[in-house]
Amino acid sequence: MATVGLYSVNRTLQTTARKCFVSPLKGVANLSNTTLSCSLPGTRWFSRTTGVRFMSHGTAGTSAPGRASRGALLLAGAAAAAAGFVASASHILQRAEMASVVPKVTVEEEGDISERCKGFMSPPVTNVSVLQESRAEMSTRMEMLIMETQADFCRALEKVDGGTFQVDRWEREEGGGGISCVMQDGKVFEKAGVSVSVVFGHLTEEAAKQMRSRGKVLKGKDGKLPFIAMGVSSVIHPKNPHIPTVHFNYRYFEIDEEDGSKLWWFGGGTDLTPVFIKDEDAFHFHNTLKEACDKHHPRYYPDFKKWCDRYFFIRHRGETRGIGGIFFDDLDSPDQEEAFSFVRSCARTVVPCYLPIVHKHLTEPFTVEEKDWQQVRRGRYVEFNLVYDRGVKFGLATPGSRIESILMSLPLTARWEYMHEPAKGTPEAEMLDVLRNPREWV
Amino acid sequence: MATVGLYSVNRTLQTTARKCFVSPLKGVANLSNTTLSCSLPGTRWFSRTTGVRFMSHGTAGTSAPGRASRGALLLAGAAAAAAGFVASASHILQRAEMASVVPKVTVEEEGDISERCKGFMSPPVTNVSVLQESRAEMSTRMEMLIMETQADFCRALEKVDGGTFQVDRWEREEGGGGISCVMQDGKVFEKAGVSVSVVFGHLTEEAAKQMRSRGKVLKGKDGKLPFIAMGVSSVIHPKNPHIPTVHFNYRYFEIDEEDGSKLWWFGGGTDLTPVFIKDEDAFHFHNTLKEACDKHHPRYYPDFKKWCDRYFFIRHRGETRGIGGIFFDDLDSPDQEEAFSFVRSCARTVVPCYLPIVHKHLTEPFTVEEKDWQQVRRGRYVEFNLVYDRGVKFGLATPGSRIESILMSLPLTARWEYMHEPAKGTPEAEMLDVLRNPREWV
Repeated sequence: MATVGLYSVNRTLQTTARKCFVSPLKGVANLSNTTLSCSLPGTRWFSRTTGVRFMSHGTAGTSAPGRASRGALLLAGAAAAAAGFVASASHILQRAEMASVVPKVTVEEEGDISERCKGFMSPPVTNVSVLQESRAEMSTRMEMLIMETQADFCRALEKVDGGTFQVDRWEREEGGGGISCVMQDGKVFEKAGVSVSVVFGHLTEEAAKQMRSRGKVLKGKDGKLPFIAMGVSSVIHPKNPHIPTVHFNYRYFEIDEEDGSKLWWFGGGTDLTPVFIKDEDAFHFHNTLKEACDKHHPRYYPDFKKWCDRYFFIRHRGETRGIGGIFFDDLDSPDQEEAFSFVRSCARTVVPCYLPIVHKHLTEPFTVEEKDWQQVRRGRYVEFNLVYDRGVKFGLATPGSRIESILMSLPLTARWEYMHEPAKGTPEAEMLDVLRNPREWV
Repeated sequence: MATVGLYSVNRTLQTTARKCFVSPLKGVANLSNTTLSCSLPGTRWFSRTTGVRFMSHGTAGTSAPGRASRGALLLAGAAAAAAGFVASASHILQRAEMASVVPKVTVEEEGDISERCKGFMSPPVTNVSVLQESRAEMSTRMEMLIMETQADFCRALEKVDGGTFQVDRWEREEGGGGISCVMQDGKVFEKAGVSVSVVFGHLTEEAAKQMRSRGKVLKGKDGKLPFIAMGVSSVIHPKNPHIPTVHFNYRYFEIDEEDGSKLWWFGGGTDLTPVFIKDEDAFHFHNTLKEACDKHHPRYYPDFKKWCDRYFFIRHRGETRGIGGIFFDDLDSPDQEEAFSFVRSCARTVVPCYLPIVHKHLTEPFTVEEKDWQQVRRGRYVEFNLVYDRGVKFGLATPGSRIESILMSLPLTARWEYMHEPAKGTPEAEMLDVLRNPREWV
């Protein structure tokens, strides 16, 4: 692979990419829930911790014949994974009429795009000049939001840990890609992953069919349905068993229709997985989410809280993964501006939801037994993510997906003890009881 | 639950169970590959390490209304899981004509059944008097073989470890059940599980349809197809990274047809998952299997070796789980006696395949780095078992299955490092190369 400057490659690719994307996708978006990923043969990497450098992606393969023949398969995979965005079976909210035309949005007073980009963990996936030209478009505003969310969260975690995130930037030759930030074996965090992905291409017939079956009326030009899908996703596993694991994911999907209109929707959620139940933490977490939701709709918190408990359920254990939070999908009401505003509120709530809990337990001592129980709960986390998580399942089933980004949600260490059952009356038993009988926290 | 003596319960249940089973199954056999399990509301446990005792099965529920309504679901699950026996898509061997009548078998000169049972880890699942009365039947001979295999392997492992297996005996009220033997955190073994299961009932229409689609012509009496499914299954995770993990599973399936004849087949395999490649161990393991196979058919080893490499493949990693061994399914040729004889040869090869390798590396020192690499490989083992293993998938998807028996194949500890890639020329890199490019070992 030619060792050329990252930015020159970016410029060449991206100025033509976003609006005139024609080649089949060689990557895959794994956008349904936990992770967002995209890879291609010969992916380039930019790693902040080791300076600017290029690496070929070891497992993806780089042979030219392979690329050509894999194109179709990967296109199918990308679209199928993107379709995961909307794979939830039930809608709790009464849905507004499908918004078939993107409303004219007001450019926010948020400062110059190139200035804002300077604070990100890496340049955005889309070239800055393209973002500047299209600054009023929702895809641009959302990409800025997910980049900002990644940066804000990573900085907050770095500050409390003292460590530094490894930043892996990956691209597809035709444009798009992602930025995976991982901090491993830090002082406070065992494994912290915060990933951004922006993927575009054409929906496959299968994905289009899936969407039609979900009530989305699609009219493509010459049968083609260009789409763009993006999101930010994160899982944080701390070392101290008194600090809970947190997960969040906010995402946006857009499809261009024949008449130039766009079909769009948002999805996302934030949820907490403690090792020991602490009512005060649970109240703080849920109440912070509720306050963010209540600004937008009184049904959002109660409905999305229930949705979250239902989604993060380890069926074969009869336990939820954690104490929940909020989860929603297919949000396309009341209008695009308000839906985005709600998602922005949620994304900006991640740090105030989680960091106070981290600080509170930062120096709390713990026993070997408490650490063991954390490891057993980590095992359950792995079970949920590998057996049920739709994003992971889509990603793993799709050839060419970036496995490392999909599986960065797994903890550094986990444990499976045969017939493990905490003694009655212990904090471990109390935790299990909450997981078996989800509670209302606010 | 009434605390009555285990044996009296056994007698009462089992004397009427095996041949006059009419009630819907409340358990599920998870027989496809790694695990064999069966549970029901109110399962009773017999634990050798803590003496004879009874426990209710915590997660299965014990309420009477629940039982009645769950019956149909669980029957479907049991049959579906049992159908996993034959879920392999491809048959390598030219299959003989379907054996629709069980051949008259010669009773083996293997001593008195009740005498042989004394050496087992627990009394067999079927009552000894029932086994004695039906000693010439294949189901009896196979149950004796799987019990004997469990005992021989457990004793060999106990001898080398110095520890003792915990023996959990579980039953269904209508008869059948299993015996799970687990040794955890021993001197040599991190986690060792050896499980036996014997399940019977009636095939659901769905399972029958699945079997018909696989070329099995089924003619049931009044549409009912009584079946019996049984097997022994084991996964051993040692502590020392120089001692490989081993897995084996041998199983038998029988369906009663309208005219009194029986449809039957065998399946199974033994495979090795080392952390570091050691040519001598790989040769010993494969050669021992080859010698056992060659006594029966010259195509068995080469064909079943390939089948094994194909089956134990972690697709999203592009790696096999280990260095393979043998794997086969739907074996119903050349006749029942010879097929059983082959399975018996394989089952009796487990100890000579594995124990010499354990002994060889018993006191070999290892570094922290070698232990870490073992933990990373353990993570891959978890990925295979949770994402691909048909037995685990069936079991987890089936309400009421005994999760602890299904997931006892998971290691005590595992690790997921982001972007882990061994340096070139290291033993870790050599191991990966073998997993990416399966070799011929003999």
